[in-house]
This record gives sequence, structure tokens and C-alpha cells, in this order.
Amino acid sequence: MTKIILRGCNGKMGQVITELLVNDEQAQIVAGIDLNGIAKNGYPVFKSFSHCNVDADVIIDFSSPKGLEDMIFYGQNKNVPIVLCTTGLSEEDIAMVSEGSKKVGILRSANMSLGINTLLKLVQAATKVLVAADFDIEILEKHHNQKVDAPSGTALLLADAINEVLNKEYTYQYDRSKELAPRGKKEIGISAVRGGTIVGEHEVIFAGTDEVIEFKHTAYSKAVFAKGAIQAAKFLAGKGPGLYQMSDVIE
Amino acid sequence: MTKIILRGCNGKMGQVITELLVNDEQAQIVAGIDLNGIAKNGYPVFKSFSHCNVDADVIIDFSSPKGLEDMIFYGQNKNVPIVLCTTGLSEEDIAMVSEGSKKVGILRSANMSLGINTLLKLVQAATKVLVAADFDIEILEKHHNQKVDAPSGTALLLADAINEVLNKEYTYQYDRSKELAPRGKKEIGISAVRGGTIVGEHEVIFAGTDEVIEFKHTAYSKAVFAKGAIQAAKFLAGKGPGLYQMSDVIE
Amino acid sequence: MTKIILRGCNGKMGQVITELLVNDEQAQIVAGIDLNGIAKNGYPVFKSFSHCNVDADVIIDFSSPKGLEDMIFYGQNKNVPIVLCTTGLSEEDIAMVSEGSKKVGILRSANMSLGINTLLKLVQAATKVLVAADFDIEILEKHHNQKVDAPSGTALLLADAINEVLNKEYTYQYDRSKELAPRGKKEIGISAVRGGTIVGEHEVIFAGTDEVIEFKHTAYSKAVFAKGAIQAAKFLAGKGPGLYQMSDVIE
Amino acid sequence: MTKIILRGCNGKMGQVITELLVNDEQAQIVAGIDLNGIAKNGYPVFKSFSHCNVDADVIIDFSSPKGLEDMIFYGQNKNVPIVLCTTGLSEEDIAMVSEGSKKVGILRSANMSLGINTLLKLVQAATKVLVAADFDIEILEKHHNQKVDAPSGTALLLADAINEVLNKEYTYQYDRSKELAPRGKKEIGISAVRGGTIVGEHEVIFAGTDEVIEFKHTAYSKAVFAKGAIQAAKFLAGKGPGLYQMSDVIE
Repeated sequence: MTKIILRGCNGKMGQVITELLVNDEQAQIVAGIDLNGIAKNGYPVFKSFSHCNVDADVIIDFSSPKGLEDMIFYGQNKNVPIVLCTTGLSEEDIAMVSEGSKKVGILRSANMSLGINTLLKLVQAATKVLVAADFDIEILEKHHNQKVDAPSGTALLLADAINEVLNKEYTYQYDRSKELAPRGKKEIGISAVRGGTIVGEHEVIFAGTDEVIEFKHTAYSKAVFAKGAIQAAKFLAGKGPGLYQMSDVIE
Repeated sequence: MTKIILRGCNGKMGQVITELLVNDEQAQIVAGIDLNGIAKNGYPVFKSFSHCNVDADVIIDFSSPKGLEDMIFYGQNKNVPIVLCTTGLSEEDIAMVSEGSKKVGILRSANMSLGINTLLKLVQAATKVLVAADFDIEILEKHHNQKVDAPSGTALLLADAINEVLNKEYTYQYDRSKELAPRGKKEIGISAVRGGTIVGEHEVIFAGTDEVIEFKHTAYSKAVFAKGAIQAAKFLAGKGPGLYQMSDVIE
Repeated sequence: MTKIILRGCNGKMGQVITELLVNDEQAQIVAGIDLNGIAKNGYPVFKSFSHCNVDADVIIDFSSPKGLEDMIFYGQNKNVPIVLCTTGLSEEDIAMVSEGSKKVGILRSANMSLGINTLLKLVQAATKVLVAADFDIEILEKHHNQKVDAPSGTALLLADAINEVLNKEYTYQYDRSKELAPRGKKEIGISAVRGGTIVGEHEVIFAGTDEVIEFKHTAYSKAVFAKGAIQAAKFLAGKGPGLYQMSDVIE
Repeated sequence: MTKIILRGCNGKMGQVITELLVNDEQAQIVAGIDLNGIAKNGYPVFKSFSHCNVDADVIIDFSSPKGLEDMIFYGQNKNVPIVLCTTGLSEEDIAMVSEGSKKVGILRSANMSLGINTLLKLVQAATKVLVAADFDIEILEKHHNQKVDAPSGTALLLADAINEVLNKEYTYQYDRSKELAPRGKKEIGISAVRGGTIVGEHEVIFAGTDEVIEFKHTAYSKAVFAKGAIQAAKFLAGKGPGLYQMSDVIE
């Protein structure tokens, strides 16, 4: 049984993870960390890692960059690897994670869903074959009307993964309304649709001569990110120092 | 039998129309007008309307704005209405068409396909109901990599038709990558995907709370525009002066 | 403020409606009816209508056919119209509803979502135009892997609405693997995809010569049915006897 | 320059290949084989292989099973490998191909498009990961209203490729309207939509808990199969005896 400490346990994603683990036979939450310190789910909750005295195999973090240092320090001291799902890290934070991973395992991904991470690999494989056959590549993403950034981090993750295969020779095109010109050969168009409460759709389109291939991922709820985090936690428990990614979990 | 004069008969669209009419039992081409004057399809071809001495019920024009005045003059004199499918008209040309239609019937539409024009009407009906229920509206179009303009004229046609229902209170959003902000309430996002040889796809997306309605039109070949022009010609034959649209044909 | 009695208040859909109405400024639940009689949402809950002594403007029913007679009897006596969302009614039940509606307003629809009911009307309008232009019609629906019936009731609702326009001359085709033959002219193909936890997708496809028009509705959660029921309740409050449908609500 | 003999050169696909090769700098047609023996494309046409006296590097065959034996005999004698695109082979024919390939290279695939064959590989890779994570698999295909078989050969090709990864433990489900039951765990649903002039769409759907991944291929014209055949011919020229597939071409 993988024993998990859940940082941000009383937040939205924390509660989704808590619910998903109620009947899990391979993993359970043994403690929560949350600023408000309220225990409402049957496991003890501590205001910070310095108060936590519970043994665990792995930490899942769905909170905020604040307190990142304390968590890494705790992980290193107690030898507990960390699944880092918190977003909005500064460059300084990322450097700290990188440095920290030399002494404790840290897994970090821009998107935690199993589906998106499977797609990433397949799209890279497709790129190799299809760009050689002169296909153009476009990315389309759809999200709810409250999302403030565009394109989504995951759309950029897909674009970067594709561009890596293309020796980073391609540029990203966000707006074609500004000039009258045929499509550039070495560009990836990225379109962002916003509306209603759409959780998240990502589509990679390969368009060739008289044929089109599309890869599409649709998330119906935030539970897919929670599920991915749990899977990552089971994978990471027992692993040594190093920087890990969701792609390592899939293999 | 509707007798048609086809201007631009030796161009790409002219040839598609010629082929479609070979076995048509309700309409036939009785003469072509083409600068090169080459007759290769079994009907006489004249270099200009001034040389044309054949009786007809209607003109279909798929050529260029050059010669527009001559054609309207001919139509007025001989009382032959005109299906005007030529694009790239200047404001001056449009004024001339408007003025000319006082003496002869002229049908002009930015998109001649039956499907798109059916969609236009339905999308307007949907807008009334769904915007009242707080749905957001987005338009997505896909075309081949040689198309120089974005968004497509048809995407703008759809947006304008929708905006008409909304008292023109909505603005069009082509690029969301420039600022960090939730979606504006009174905007229509328009995205343009470019790749391969895609003939033309248009999608209107209504996104509400936990539900999405999509209307999509896919053209698989340019024949759909030729078919629409023929349908319009059959409709327009015998009609009096006035400005007509494809929406009149559908009713 | 529309006062609602909610039958089946402690069931899944009952709870969704309860939540949605917490902050509604135009409607509120004044009483629940539920066999278990447990009050947990701030309004009184009665085991049956015979115990209910609360004044209301309209009833919403998301429970089971059992007790249908009591509810209609109550509605007639107290002059409270009924939004009937319960499914699985027998022919006897339906006859009872029809008879009952002579003395009290009853609104019943196979699908309560605003989106689907908007689609129904538009698809009927499209059918008139597109079948005349020789388009074929196909319906495709997707649902989760626990759904026991196929095709879905809503897919049949769409097919029936289309067939009504076509003078009921079309037949439904569920399986094309059994014979080697081109598509029948007067048939509507209906395909059912099952997998995962898909809440519900319905697509009507009009396929013509070189062009295709698709109408698609996606439900992301069961809340869309609850929302529709609430909208129907607001509409029905104060209405006289008669059988109503969601299409009346939209107009 | 790869020199090609094209069997079935005056048929529909033969003409598409002829046109595509007009400006190809790596391959050209040096002779055609066609029962009618009419030469109309600038290369000599023979009624059968016994009359053909032209040197070539590879044969492309888009005709009928009739004459298969003669072609294989010719290929073996002259050491010219064969891209076999003819469909409708009997079991006897297939045995003959298999036997024949011991002495001359023969490439045969149920679908010649580069896109579909790329998809096949990616879908197999996806199956491994996603079935382990409890995703259900469904296949959806769309074709024109004149197609007599359903599901399409390519849909079955996709299903078989997936099932191979699943140790052939899955069964195919073509019709769910016959019984009231939840989806079987070890089944692949296959749906066939028919309408208009749709050239060919194939979609593999992986549906999991709150997320769906879709892989879709759309063919806009038959040219994609001609292009694939030409690619295969360039690959096969110079290869020794053996049975080859389009998947060998992609690697």
C-alpha cells in the first residue's frame, strides 16, 4: 500500500484526489498538509511539513509555489519523493526543483493526464513520418470562458514536443488575420477557442495532400489530472533521486 | 429548359459547371463568354458580350471583375438576369451591381454552396435561443495552405449573419495570445486553421454551461459552389429586377 | 419567485437540481417528496404527496413511474402543473399522463436539455431543405459503457422528429454488416458508440454530393438536464391544463 | 529514375497514378497493361504481360484478380517486384501471392494510404498503454452511399491490428440495438455511417474515465491511395523476394 502525503489537501484538486483514493487498494492518504489545518477527510492534516510526523512513501503536491522549499527539504530529509503538480512556478522555483532533485526524486509535468501524455509520444512519432511526407501541422485547443491564458500550457507542451522532433526549426503562428500570404512551410498554427465551461480539448492536425490525420484529447472533468497524479505517485514511491516526467510513468 | 450564358466558361469553375450540366434535364449552356474565345465544349464561345448573339434566360458569371459593366449592360438590354459568382469586387463594383440591379435581376452571395447558405439561416435561428441562455459563440474554419486570406470570407459571412441577430453588438476576436484575461462576453472568436489541400470547413460552436452545440459544414470539392450557382440560375431565370441572395433560393 | 415541489429530491438528479437552485433568484424548492423522507437540504421532505401541506407553483419529478398517479391527482387537486422528467413510463402510464393533462398542465420530454431541444427544431428545418437537395441523413450517438439501451432515447427522438418532416416514409437502419448492398435511399442510419464515462453526444449528419453538414450536441454533465427542468418549471408555473413539451419552452 | 509498369492503366486508379507521375522526378511509367490495349497517355499499352517487351524496375497493379497468375509469373521471370493494390482476392489468389512471393518481392496492403498506415502503428502503440488504463475501444467509419460492404476493409484492418496487441481476445460488435445490456469489457464496437459521396473517414476512439482520445483519418480523394502506391513502388524497386506491407515503407 503506497502511503501518500497530500499537500493542498483541502483545495479543489486535493478533494478530488481524496475522493478517488477512498476505495483504492494500492494507495491511501496518510496525512494532508494545508494552511488551514482542518481535518475533514479521515486523515490528519498539518499546517506545514515541520509539524508532520507521519511516515509516507510519496508526496503529491497540488497547492501553490509558496512553501515549495519546505516540501523539498522535507522530501530530502525523510527520503520521500515528490509528485509536483503545482503550476505557476517561477524560474527560481524551477531551478530549486532541479537542484533539489539531485537528492530526492521529483516528478513534474505541465499536464498530468495519462491521455495527454500518451498523445505527446504518439504525436512525436507521427511527426517524424508525416512531415517527411509534406504534411502541415496545426494545433487547436478549446477551454472554458474563464481561462485567462491562450494558448493553453498543454497546447504549447504539444507544440514543443513536436518542434523537438523538427530540430526546433518551426515557429508558432497564433494569428493569420494580419497579413495576406499563403501558409509558411515551417510553422505550426495554434488556435485557441474559448467558451462555456469546456474543461479542455486538444487536437493536433496533420494536413497533407487530400488526406488529414487528427489526434484529439478531450477531458470531461478535472478528475483526469487527479488520476494521473495518483498513477505518478504509485510509480514514484521507492524511486531514487532524479527529475521524472509523466512520460516515464507510461513506459 | 433554362438556357444559360456562362461567363468565364474556360476557367476552372467554368469547366466544373460545364461538366455538371452535360446531363442536366432542366438547364443547358447555350453560349460561353471567355477572353480566349476557344470553343471546346460543344457550345459557341464569344470573346465578349458585344459579340454574343444567342438568346438566353440567365447568365452565370465565374470570371473576374473586369468586364462587369459590359455584362450588366447586356443583361439590362436583353432582360437576362445574372448570377454573379465572381469575387474580389471593389466598392465601386459593388455600387455598380447595386445600381444595375434596379433594371435587371442580380444574385450575389459570398458563398454559393447550398449547404453553407442553409447553415447561415439555422445558425441565426440558433443564435436567438442560445445567446439568451448564455452560450458563447466561436467560429472555426479550415482551408488549404495556399489560401492567402484569413479568416475566410465565408467565416466572416457567418459571423456577420450571427451579429446581425445580436444587433451588431459583438466584436470579432482573432488572437487571444496577446493578453491574460477571461473571454469577453460580447465577442465572437474566429480561428483559422491552414494545411494541406483542405477544400473548406466551417464550424460554428455554441458553448454553454456543460453543453456545446456545433454546426459544421465540410466541402469536399469545388463542385459544391458550381452546383449552387446552377441552382441559383434555375431560380433566377424569369425573375424581375432586384438584388437577390442564395437565401432567396433556399426558401 | 417560483415555488417548486421536487419529487425524487434525494436521488442523483434531485440533488443536482437542489444545488443549482441554491442561488437562483427566480425559483426555489419549498418541499421535497422522497420515499426515505430524509430532509437534508434545508427544505421539508415528505414521504408522499398525501403528507405534503406546502403551497407551490409547480412540481418537478425526477423519480420513478411508481407514485405517478398520486402526483397527478395532487397536481389536479391543488392546481399545480407538473414537469415530468421521469423515464421508463409504460404505455399505461403514458395514457394516464395524457388523460391527466386534461385537468392540469403536464410537460414531458424524452430529453430535458435546452441544447437538444434547440437542435430538434433546427434539424427539422434542415431536413426540409437538404432532403430536397438529395442529402442522406445519419445519426450518431455516444454514451458511457454502462448504458444498457442502444440507440439512446434522444437519438430516436431526433430520428422521429426528422421522419415526421419526411411523412414517416423513412426506416431506421441499425446494422449494415449483414448485407452487401448500397445504402437505401429512404433510410436513416443510427449508430451507437459506447465507452468510458461519456455523458452523451448526439450528431445528425446530412451527407450530399461533395458536402456534408453536421449538427452535434455534447453534454458534459447531467446538470444540463437539471437546468432544462428548472427552465421548464419556470415556464410551466401558472399555465393551465394541457400537454406541454420542451419545444414550447424554447419559443 | 524508377521505371514502372502499370497494370490497369486505363482504369480510374490507373489514370490517377498516370497523372500524379507526369511531373515526378524519381519515377515514371514505361508501359501500361490493359485489356483494351489503348495507348492514350504517352506510354505504350499492352493487352497482357506476354506482349510486354519493356524493361522496368517495379509493377503497380490496380486492376482485377483476373490475370494475377500471369503477372506474378512475369515478375518472377524478369525479376520485377510487384505492388499489388487489386482488391477482392479469393483465398486461392492469396495463397498464390504468398507462394509467388518466395521468388519475387510482392507488397500488398488492404489500404494503400500513407496516413492510414501511419495510424495503424500509432493506434497499436496507444492500445498497449490505454487498455491497461481501462479505456474502451470503438471504431467509426464513414463512406459514400454506393459502398456495398460494411464495415469497410480498412476499419477491419484497424480492428485486427488493435486485436493483435490484445492477444486476439476481443470480439467485434456491429449492432447494439438487439439487447439491453451494458457494454462488454472485451469488445470493439465498429460503426459504419453511409451517405453522399464521402470518400472515406476512419476514427479510432479510446474512451476512459472522464477522458477520450480519438485518432481520425480523412481521405478527400482517391489520390491518396495512388500516392501510397507510388511510394510503395519506389520502395520496392530493387528489393528481393518476400511479402511486404505498407508498414515496411513507412519505417
